[in-house]
Amino acid sequence: MKKQFHVISTGKQTTEQFAAIASQIHLYVDAIHIREKEKTAKELVERIEALLSSGVPAEKIIVNDRVDVAVACGVKGAQLAYHSLPAKKVKERFPSLFVGCSVHSLEEAVEAEQGGADYCIFGHVFPTECKAGIPPRGVETLAQITSAVRIPVIAIGGIQPSHVPHIWKAGASGIAVMSGVFLANDPLAQVKSYVQMMQG
Amino acid sequence: MKKQFHVISTGKQTTEQFAAIASQIHLYVDAIHIREKEKTAKELVERIEALLSSGVPAEKIIVNDRVDVAVACGVKGAQLAYHSLPAKKVKERFPSLFVGCSVHSLEEAVEAEQGGADYCIFGHVFPTECKAGIPPRGVETLAQITSAVRIPVIAIGGIQPSHVPHIWKAGASGIAVMSGVFLANDPLAQVKSYVQMMQG
Repeated sequence: MKKQFHVISTGKQTTEQFAAIASQIHLYVDAIHIREKEKTAKELVERIEALLSSGVPAEKIIVNDRVDVAVACGVKGAQLAYHSLPAKKVKERFPSLFVGCSVHSLEEAVEAEQGGADYCIFGHVFPTECKAGIPPRGVETLAQITSAVRIPVIAIGGIQPSHVPHIWKAGASGIAVMSGVFLANDPLAQVKSYVQMMQG
Repeated sequence: MKKQFHVISTGKQTTEQFAAIASQIHLYVDAIHIREKEKTAKELVERIEALLSSGVPAEKIIVNDRVDVAVACGVKGAQLAYHSLPAKKVKERFPSLFVGCSVHSLEEAVEAEQGGADYCIFGHVFPTECKAGIPPRGVETLAQITSAVRIPVIAIGGIQPSHVPHIWKAGASGIAVMSGVFLANDPLAQVKSYVQMMQG
């Protein structure tokens, strides 16, 4: 199966900055996550509409936590955290929604699969400033998880282009990158570096 | 049409305190709103489940802002604020959900009606500590709104049992009370005082 490349917003950019970057890079990625924890539902709708206006297809947009925003805006899916609605409840009510779970252990990955999640994002695999002080979980744990569940496992956390071969070796189905793309000096060049390593 | 009595959680009580009061009073009210702005979706689900376990019917439970939580838990409806999803988007995707809008002016009430809201809550009508420093909007504005829209208008804000006749005179279809019930020394007695005035 083709490896997946997800990019995730940082919560630190204006709608205009975010949409401008998204419009440059969307052809090279499989999913753009809107992860803006401080934003209201109304603001998330505005952000989605800005992406759509910038040419990003609804099929590539995933909303963090707010299942209602994803469904109301007709975008691809929702990414659920520990504090979100349980995947099982979401899939029961919205079977056609593409549902991912953010997981941090083998147990959570198994739970996500049993709840009907379409995929999970596991991390953080490498050290990252976003999780300063919390030890990275490493590619060994990633490999344990990819062996234990059948749903695609996307790796996240401090991933540089040079890490990609190690991540594939651990059996992951894709990578997810946040500040490594959206806060890069040249997001498009950075995306292309990842894509090159993914294909290489 | 029978006048409606909505009660609204305060965001200041534990799930146990809230559920204990709700179990005492639910027979006397038409709707119990879960308005806990700091709570996650997961915590809201726990709160709904506590209400259901306490004997409160799903048909009386309304969730503030989180349409997804309301739909996933199969409860009656969602109460939308200015920062929430627009009523129109919600009714398009969830036509059977009972949708209320919180409004603060005639313009917002008209917009709620045009968006397909099933009702609106207008306030604050009387002075209230929750809105200290903001002048109450008064029964005259309430009367203007009830004349201008066909959807039921529920009055909120500092409502005491003695205010009820003035609120009916202004054409409102019901009242909504927050701390006046949930933070009362004897919530059940207080609810009965409102009900007595509503029937009187």
